[in-house]
Amino acid sequence: RVRMDEAEELFPTENFAMVVPGIYRSAFPKKKNFAFIRKLGLRSVLTLVPEDMPEQVRDFYKAQKIQFLRFGVPGNKEPFVDIPEDKIAEALTALVDVRNHPILVHCNKGKHRTGCLIGCLRKLQSWSHTAICDEYRRFAAPKPRALDQQFIELFDVTTVFYNPEHAPQWLRENQNCD
Amino acid sequence: RVRMDEAEELFPTENFAMVVPGIYRSAFPKKKNFAFIRKLGLRSVLTLVPEDMPEQVRDFYKAQKIQFLRFGVPGNKEPFVDIPEDKIAEALTALVDVRNHPILVHCNKGKHRTGCLIGCLRKLQSWSHTAICDEYRRFAAPKPRALDQQFIELFDVTTVFYNPEHAPQWLRENQNCD
Repeated sequence: RVRMDEAEELFPTENFAMVVPGIYRSAFPKKKNFAFIRKLGLRSVLTLVPEDMPEQVRDFYKAQKIQFLRFGVPGNKEPFVDIPEDKIAEALTALVDVRNHPILVHCNKGKHRTGCLIGCLRKLQSWSHTAICDEYRRFAAPKPRALDQQFIELFDVTTVFYNPEHAPQWLRENQNCD
Repeated sequence: RVRMDEAEELFPTENFAMVVPGIYRSAFPKKKNFAFIRKLGLRSVLTLVPEDMPEQVRDFYKAQKIQFLRFGVPGNKEPFVDIPEDKIAEALTALVDVRNHPILVHCNKGKHRTGCLIGCLRKLQSWSHTAICDEYRRFAAPKPRALDQQFIELFDVTTVFYNPEHAPQWLRENQNCD
């Protein structure tokens, strides 16, 4: 029997959460989050931000041997900018490949673009639209976007390809070969 | 290569989320959530609700061979009702025992009592108070309680005992025997 003792304080990335086993989400990692991220034992980071990473962050990933995957997308901003569906489908293919796990998904705030990608992942899990939007809004607060929730609702999961040999358990259970 | 196909829609329990590997949180499970809960492959459910479970729910757990753990506590309601610290410490001991995993924690709404317990779990993980409260408020919205956040802040993690042989990896790393 052991008693807890105080350990060094950790600073999780803003808007951090576990999504499913092997997949995490958050805002853009900063230097003060590095100790926390190190504990996650990540194999990959998937960013939705098209801009180059700060050198500090790039060096940190390199030192930690973290594979860096970029699927840069613009945020949903009415009326002219849309998240490209095909990019999200590609990002999902990378996200559900257990060879990339544990993986952290992030954009800038971990609210909108990350929220869209995770919403589409929940769709792969067959979550009801109500539950998907509840989760989306939990992280997007106080600025949920109707356009994002519509994007998730209209997203066609049949455009997502994956390798069943390297798919997580929950996805293999839903599998329908064609 | 396999393409996603539409599967049967699932209704996650309200306020559902994964906390750490092996630990989930949510509101009170209802009949329409049973198919979803079945997919989690739970070994245990830990409830913070002191009242008896509806028969339907009890029968469901029995059929699924889910161990049912009760640490009934009243919610924090000013000025007279406090969450008992010792009960939360005991619940944490059960929560960090991997022999009970996967485990689902719930109260009624999955906001306040569950939020307090998970906040204390985050304290075991050495999360900063800011990050703990961010997460607490995400699930307690739109009714976060200052008293709950204070409860978490004042909670003494050294009152939590656990068996290091059956503790999760992240806890064993922080361990300090006495």
